Amino acid sequence: MNALNVKAELARRAAEVEAYLAGCLRGRGIPDRLLASMEYSLLAGGKRLRPALVLCFARHFGADGASVMPFAAALELIHTYSLIHDDLPAMDNDDLRRGKPSNHKQFDEATAILAGDGLLTEAFSLMFSCADGGQVPAPRLVRAAQAVAVAAGSGGMVGGQTLDMVYTARQGVGFDELRAMHALKTGALITAACVAGALLAGAEPPLVRRAREYGENVGAAFQIADDILDVVGDTKTLGKPAGSDERQGKTTYPSLVGLEKSRALANERAAAAVEALSGLESPEADFLRHLALYLVERVS
Amino acid sequence: MNALNVKAELARRAAEVEAYLAGCLRGRGIPDRLLASMEYSLLAGGKRLRPALVLCFARHFGADGASVMPFAAALELIHTYSLIHDDLPAMDNDDLRRGKPSNHKQFDEATAILAGDGLLTEAFSLMFSCADGGQVPAPRLVRAAQAVAVAAGSGGMVGGQTLDMVYTARQGVGFDELRAMHALKTGALITAACVAGALLAGAEPPLVRRAREYGENVGAAFQIADDILDVVGDTKTLGKPAGSDERQGKTTYPSLVGLEKSRALANERAAAAVEALSGLESPEADFLRHLALYLVERVS
Repeated sequence: MNALNVKAELARRAAEVEAYLAGCLRGRGIPDRLLASMEYSLLAGGKRLRPALVLCFARHFGADGASVMPFAAALELIHTYSLIHDDLPAMDNDDLRRGKPSNHKQFDEATAILAGDGLLTEAFSLMFSCADGGQVPAPRLVRAAQAVAVAAGSGGMVGGQTLDMVYTARQGVGFDELRAMHALKTGALITAACVAGALLAGAEPPLVRRAREYGENVGAAFQIADDILDVVGDTKTLGKPAGSDERQGKTTYPSLVGLEKSRALANERAAAAVEALSGLESPEADFLRHLALYLVERVS
Repeated sequence: MNALNVKAELARRAAEVEAYLAGCLRGRGIPDRLLASMEYSLLAGGKRLRPALVLCFARHFGADGASVMPFAAALELIHTYSLIHDDLPAMDNDDLRRGKPSNHKQFDEATAILAGDGLLTEAFSLMFSCADGGQVPAPRLVRAAQAVAVAAGSGGMVGGQTLDMVYTARQGVGFDELRAMHALKTGALITAACVAGALLAGAEPPLVRRAREYGENVGAAFQIADDILDVVGDTKTLGKPAGSDERQGKTTYPSLVGLEKSRALANERAAAAVEALSGLESPEADFLRHLALYLVERVS
């Protein structure tokens, strides 16, 4: 599987998630303007990496993809809510997101805040729906949802965003602080996607630990690669232009340790992710290994 | 049980919840500033009505109060998050909340947004923790948490706040719209507290419906009474001064149908709440009946 194949396979899996996302907020009695705002951001594209990770791990450990799709989609709702709130004037004050007006520019600030709140809450509602027809046993579901809540919460993603605001205001951050902040801000939810997938399928604790180890390393590799792309642009695969840095004035891996050292770090973490899955044999495990390498190949 | 006794009993139950709330965010790895902001609003007092309802219904139907306390507390976290976000400049722009600076005035807007996001997410984490030691069977927990997610979400509380913003901007709202908006904005979560309490204790569907009916009516009575208090002040029991209207320019029950008709409506809904519990015998059911009458007695 080469980089082009991985990209195509990731896109195929994203399309599967996309089809579910397109309908998942309908029929819930959501006021028109709020629904429009939630779907504006939820259906704005993206790699759908977090749902893909839930589905991969769940399938590898024997679950049926359709039975955990609402849970996988929930991770994308949480990711989307975090982007909407991060873009707000009081936070990063970004007018653009993926080349389109950010949610509060397209609608208004109040609607954007509420759209984020709504997406976060509907995410849990979607997760719970996996137990409705007994597709996922309730005890597994509770453990998986708890992993997501902890990762998304104030000791995880929300905490990471708080540290990001503190560091940006202070205009200075050390390497260990940067790493710890990213581990919370982006790493925790990516890791939770892997862990939740394994838990939903009833994987034993030692195997859940492997999923966690993969997630932590892929999350770090992904973040470092993203930092690199903001400097050099993504000429190879994703078409992200150089200098499209939405995080101007923020400390990044390249700004702290330089491009070459950043690339080495990204490769190191991708290799550790592959290592975490050693001995696991399935088409899903194969894809996960290729995915880890692909995420850093595009910047090397 | 007279009004004074009900007030004292409600305060006693609030103190029990308060003791749990004081520690529930500790040891979760929350960055200092975020924790300070979350606790500033969470521990600012209040009647703790929603947790009291969860505990009453759970106990009436046979659950142990301690086993569902984290779930009860979670409802207060959700209520608190909604107040923090509602107060934001882009929403109601309130500088004061319960006589103290609102969260974004005490901290800053970014921190207030994140504190709300954090409280909402930790709420689910607290709910899930009720299954940790098997205190609550996981299937019951999932049903109760789902009831809360639906009520708090974009088809419930968040949707109600959206409608409130739309109506305020338009400066005109009819009686049916006002009623439907309040049913979402405040009624849904109060109802979910009652329903979740019953579900956590494993109550049968017909009894869960009684809890729902009680909640819907108490929620409406409470909202109408609150509207009345904003006009006449609460000279009897709570010390809320007249004219402390934090919702200036908003349509209220008294502004639409007058004080007397509002009082009649509140009494009607309180009576319907009492009626919903007819035949249910326990100290908890007694307290719930007295509570419904107390909430409107203070404005009649």
